[in-house]
Amino acid sequence: MSKLITIVLVAVLAVVAWRLLTPARTPLQVPDPQEWWGPVEMKGKQDKSVRPFKIKFDEAMIINLKQRLKKHRPFTPPLEGIAFQYGFNTEQLEGYLKYWSEEYPFREREKAFNRFPQYKTNIQGLDIHFIRVKPQVTQGVTVVPLLLLHGWPGSLREFFEAIPLLTQQRPGYDFVFEVIAPSMPGFGYSDAAVRPGLGPNQMGVIYRNLMHRLGFKKYYIQAGNWGNIIATAMVTFYPEDVLGLHDNAPFIMSNGATFKTFFGALIPSLVVESHLADRMYPLSWLFSYALEEYGYCHLQATKPDTVGVALGDSPAGLAAYILEKFSTWTHRAHRSLPDGGLNKYTKEQLIDNLMFYWAPNSFTTAIRIYANHFTKENLALEIDDYPTAVPAWFLQAKSELFYQPPSILEMKFTNVLNYTVLDYGGHFFALELPEEFADDVFKAVTAFRHWHNINKTKL
Amino acid sequence: MSKLITIVLVAVLAVVAWRLLTPARTPLQVPDPQEWWGPVEMKGKQDKSVRPFKIKFDEAMIINLKQRLKKHRPFTPPLEGIAFQYGFNTEQLEGYLKYWSEEYPFREREKAFNRFPQYKTNIQGLDIHFIRVKPQVTQGVTVVPLLLLHGWPGSLREFFEAIPLLTQQRPGYDFVFEVIAPSMPGFGYSDAAVRPGLGPNQMGVIYRNLMHRLGFKKYYIQAGNWGNIIATAMVTFYPEDVLGLHDNAPFIMSNGATFKTFFGALIPSLVVESHLADRMYPLSWLFSYALEEYGYCHLQATKPDTVGVALGDSPAGLAAYILEKFSTWTHRAHRSLPDGGLNKYTKEQLIDNLMFYWAPNSFTTAIRIYANHFTKENLALEIDDYPTAVPAWFLQAKSELFYQPPSILEMKFTNVLNYTVLDYGGHFFALELPEEFADDVFKAVTAFRHWHNINKTKL
Repeated sequence: MSKLITIVLVAVLAVVAWRLLTPARTPLQVPDPQEWWGPVEMKGKQDKSVRPFKIKFDEAMIINLKQRLKKHRPFTPPLEGIAFQYGFNTEQLEGYLKYWSEEYPFREREKAFNRFPQYKTNIQGLDIHFIRVKPQVTQGVTVVPLLLLHGWPGSLREFFEAIPLLTQQRPGYDFVFEVIAPSMPGFGYSDAAVRPGLGPNQMGVIYRNLMHRLGFKKYYIQAGNWGNIIATAMVTFYPEDVLGLHDNAPFIMSNGATFKTFFGALIPSLVVESHLADRMYPLSWLFSYALEEYGYCHLQATKPDTVGVALGDSPAGLAAYILEKFSTWTHRAHRSLPDGGLNKYTKEQLIDNLMFYWAPNSFTTAIRIYANHFTKENLALEIDDYPTAVPAWFLQAKSELFYQPPSILEMKFTNVLNYTVLDYGGHFFALELPEEFADDVFKAVTAFRHWHNINKTKL
Repeated sequence: MSKLITIVLVAVLAVVAWRLLTPARTPLQVPDPQEWWGPVEMKGKQDKSVRPFKIKFDEAMIINLKQRLKKHRPFTPPLEGIAFQYGFNTEQLEGYLKYWSEEYPFREREKAFNRFPQYKTNIQGLDIHFIRVKPQVTQGVTVVPLLLLHGWPGSLREFFEAIPLLTQQRPGYDFVFEVIAPSMPGFGYSDAAVRPGLGPNQMGVIYRNLMHRLGFKKYYIQAGNWGNIIATAMVTFYPEDVLGLHDNAPFIMSNGATFKTFFGALIPSLVVESHLADRMYPLSWLFSYALEEYGYCHLQATKPDTVGVALGDSPAGLAAYILEKFSTWTHRAHRSLPDGGLNKYTKEQLIDNLMFYWAPNSFTTAIRIYANHFTKENLALEIDDYPTAVPAWFLQAKSELFYQPPSILEMKFTNVLNYTVLDYGGHFFALELPEEFADDVFKAVTAFRHWHNINKTKL
């Protein structure tokens, strides 16, 4: 069997080496900064102002939602002895639905959703919704802009605990953050594109235009999940903009990364430190894990509008579909726990996040990002083949979906200042461990600022 | 680029050849014929009688369904210029939902559902629902039993047009069929297993026990979709039972099949006749097609209970999810048609089929077959590695999901009497072209009977 694996590995290595030796090196293609994603008839007529915005939970929406929850069709009981191994356990689901329909304090949460100042402004035809929190500062404290990027199936809700920590002065730091956190196009309260093609690379263009609209020519970025891919596009397209990237889900896709990953299966010590090797290997584990967990991605990348019908129509279905991710992505072993390990979060936190999909009815438009990313055109850009010198700081939680070591990440990021490698924590790090999240971001930006000082560039 | 492909192919061939040369040949493992799938407390107490059964559309279910359809959440409009390429087109969907809620004649269809005599009998703890139609025959005409097997997302509805054709004497034929068509365990009105593990191999055991219960020790099988996999298991486990297999979706999975498929990518003429090569090659087309169309399979094989919540709760979602398959699997080019090519079927036919999932609320239990099939244990049985001499007759429609040529199928089926290769027709062949379907089955069984006569075995 080991011979078999060796043959496969050598074959794959040979192929990838071949491609590495014969790259079709083309100049980096930056997407059109003015590409129009809104209705054609609106082109040239858009309101470029920045307008205050508040989330409103329509009374009819609340009544309708409660009815749907209470009148959900009887669920299929889980199989004997099964916790979350066949997906979300329907016995556990009942508790969340009961809470959502009977106890979730809609009006109170609406207020909480509006705790942070929010705005909308039209970028490339789409009204982009964002939180913008300006800190109160005392003399001598510098305010630095931080673009905070969520992903799927998250939302701005992931940052509610962290934002106050980031925007409050703290002892020992001579700076504090002004946070700009946009809802991704098609997600939550941001408009969705009306035509195909708005993937993460194109969203990077929109975010950059947003930051420029707000007067920020240079800024830091914090990102995870899709935010990681969007931010990677931004540091590639606009290295002059990004002062530093704090990324809690660093991952690159390139022939070089594939080569090293496979090569490391033969001689791990040449690719990854021994105490972290079990985050990547054996490859068979990695493959079976990816196969087990990526069905949603496969479906969303190919038939988003189909699955979107059911998930836009059934709040019970939406809860099962999204909360499953909060279970499995927080820790792999949660699949075997009776409650799916969801007690890491409060019900309020989890339902808040669902409200960002349910209330604006944005599930389908959100998941179209998968279909728009996995296209020949987008993948052909091969963003991760172009190195960037933008300073980076990576937070690597134990249960993040995939782990890549410095030897791989530094093929793309030539200037990584630090790896915060933790033996705990999961994919929704800002929500799960907001204090540690904020602490790490402060440390990262301290390092970025120090690096810029030494390198004679200034904020 | 062609060099690259050659390297990959040679590597894969080397690996598969290695496995072929070093097979871990074990005796065929037939599943326990008494394995119990019902509640433990029922064991030994089951009613083994065969009870007449009629489908009833509960009035409350109809009212509730109509409400859900009428009050579906507003759909996300399709992207500009998109027909079915992002999944089911929601503008098209509206028409089906309006028909279902306002025009679909529930009571009339309930009668039509009960047009054929139906029964239930308990096999291994599960009440199995089946249609059984005994033909009226004149003297000299032999009645031969035919087990008719549906799959997912089909149902017994696929055969409503074909059953009368199969059970009616026809000029020139000295036999006619008695049709036994079961609802798959967990589908429609058949009970679902209460514990993990009931995949197609185990369903083959249940079907064989059903046929024996009904007094049929020898019978013919007609199959497609999952029916193909179940029937393949039956001819492997019980070659003495099966007099002949008519299969309209023949497909085997084995190292040998993989080897030939890849080998044929290098030298097609050694694997497939030239006029059929475009049904298999280029491999890149095959891979991208599989990637594009198999997201549902990936999800259902890993998280059936999650996606089942939404699809059991939203009839609009169920319609989009299942009708998408009737569009794409009938012809690949249907994705680009404004109406998805669904005018091949009547709305009544399509909604009838949905009713087999909605009315008994069996969507989740049905799709668990994917999770139960793609397990290490089931795949390790390597059913397709064991050849069978049961006579076979294959109908190969142009738009069937995957095509395999005689050189591959005959590694498993050593006694194929005929290939009906058509340059039209799709996956739901019995529903799409019931006359041609029935004609081909009659021809096949004529050939099977002739073969048995020559070989001195008799029905």
